[in-house]
Amino acid sequence: MSSSLTDHLHWRYAAKKLNPQRPVPQPLVDRIVEAARLAPTSSGLQPFELISVTNPEVRAKIREIAWNQAQITDGSHLLVFAAWDNYTVERINHMFDLTNAVRGFKNEGWENYRQMLLASYPQRDAEVNYAHAARQAYIAVGVALLAAAEAQVDCTPMEGFDPAKLDDILGLRARGLRSVVILPLGYRQEEGDWLAKLAKVRRPLDQFLTEVK
Amino acid sequence: MSSSLTDHLHWRYAAKKLNPQRPVPQPLVDRIVEAARLAPTSSGLQPFELISVTNPEVRAKIREIAWNQAQITDGSHLLVFAAWDNYTVERINHMFDLTNAVRGFKNEGWENYRQMLLASYPQRDAEVNYAHAARQAYIAVGVALLAAAEAQVDCTPMEGFDPAKLDDILGLRARGLRSVVILPLGYRQEEGDWLAKLAKVRRPLDQFLTEVK
Repeated sequence: MSSSLTDHLHWRYAAKKLNPQRPVPQPLVDRIVEAARLAPTSSGLQPFELISVTNPEVRAKIREIAWNQAQITDGSHLLVFAAWDNYTVERINHMFDLTNAVRGFKNEGWENYRQMLLASYPQRDAEVNYAHAARQAYIAVGVALLAAAEAQVDCTPMEGFDPAKLDDILGLRARGLRSVVILPLGYRQEEGDWLAKLAKVRRPLDQFLTEVK
Repeated sequence: MSSSLTDHLHWRYAAKKLNPQRPVPQPLVDRIVEAARLAPTSSGLQPFELISVTNPEVRAKIREIAWNQAQITDGSHLLVFAAWDNYTVERINHMFDLTNAVRGFKNEGWENYRQMLLASYPQRDAEVNYAHAARQAYIAVGVALLAAAEAQVDCTPMEGFDPAKLDDILGLRARGLRSVVILPLGYRQEEGDWLAKLAKVRRPLDQFLTEVK
């Protein structure tokens, strides 16, 4: 059975060299952002935001606090995944109110669920909530990198940066956000990329999957 | 510009009622597992495994420690995403040795990178490493749920279970694994599903994306 998604996964790789002469057309970036926006999250709270950085000076600054990784400035767009620093009453209510507004009615079970979240999440330690929010952002990272592959756009998910400094550069903390992953978008330039021609390596199935029958 | 991936994201939802009479054909489950296996992870370490539970008694036990969510037994397969409990020297070396074996040579830069990881990860607190591994598993959750949608298979990602008890049921801790997400697979049964006909709600783009131009 054919699967274009599996093809996308084979096509993609973490490009080490992006072509600085070939920007990604904005409509393709929009598609990648839209896929991330549609990604599911725990309780539908969507506890993260995206920042799309095209400004060259800002990207140059970010590169300095990200191990000088060239894709950050060789690509045309840098998507920053930034998780909520905490779950607050206001944030939870905002999503439930939005849901009611879109659907045009209140669902009793959903309202009970809201109360359950309000009675637990805001009381937890902010670090616990941030850790949970960050995990949800990673679901969207998985979705976004497939959306990029579908659009034949290269991207290289990166955790190798100083999150506190990136938060400073983009003013994220003041907005209650903390950066978790950055995703430069561009087009692979195989000359100058040591990884481009090497086989993708994953553990074989018998080291990855256990069946309980 | 059309995008089948965006269509998949609109088609899918967290089904609340799966049809207990309609099992998912194994070849489709294999595709979903394969997509998760191909998902990228930090440094390519793939710090998680999947457990596919079809055994009805085991799924009944899991349902008991998962808020009695019916999809766990109404679906035909339950995929458990289990992250490494720690990064060890052995685990890191295993992935780098596997990479060298598959590619047929040692890359000096890659070997230097191995040494950098060996000098940092195993010395960190196990909880820090587990938290990092768990995030990687969430990338694969994002990939797997798209693979399910592509195969027109329904799935409902769940965090609502007692991880310690699930680890007990499946014997995960002895294998150095900790459950993070469960994913029942099946086919939606719209009668009896309060969510089936309701609109998908996401924050509008202006509450999700910031552009730094």
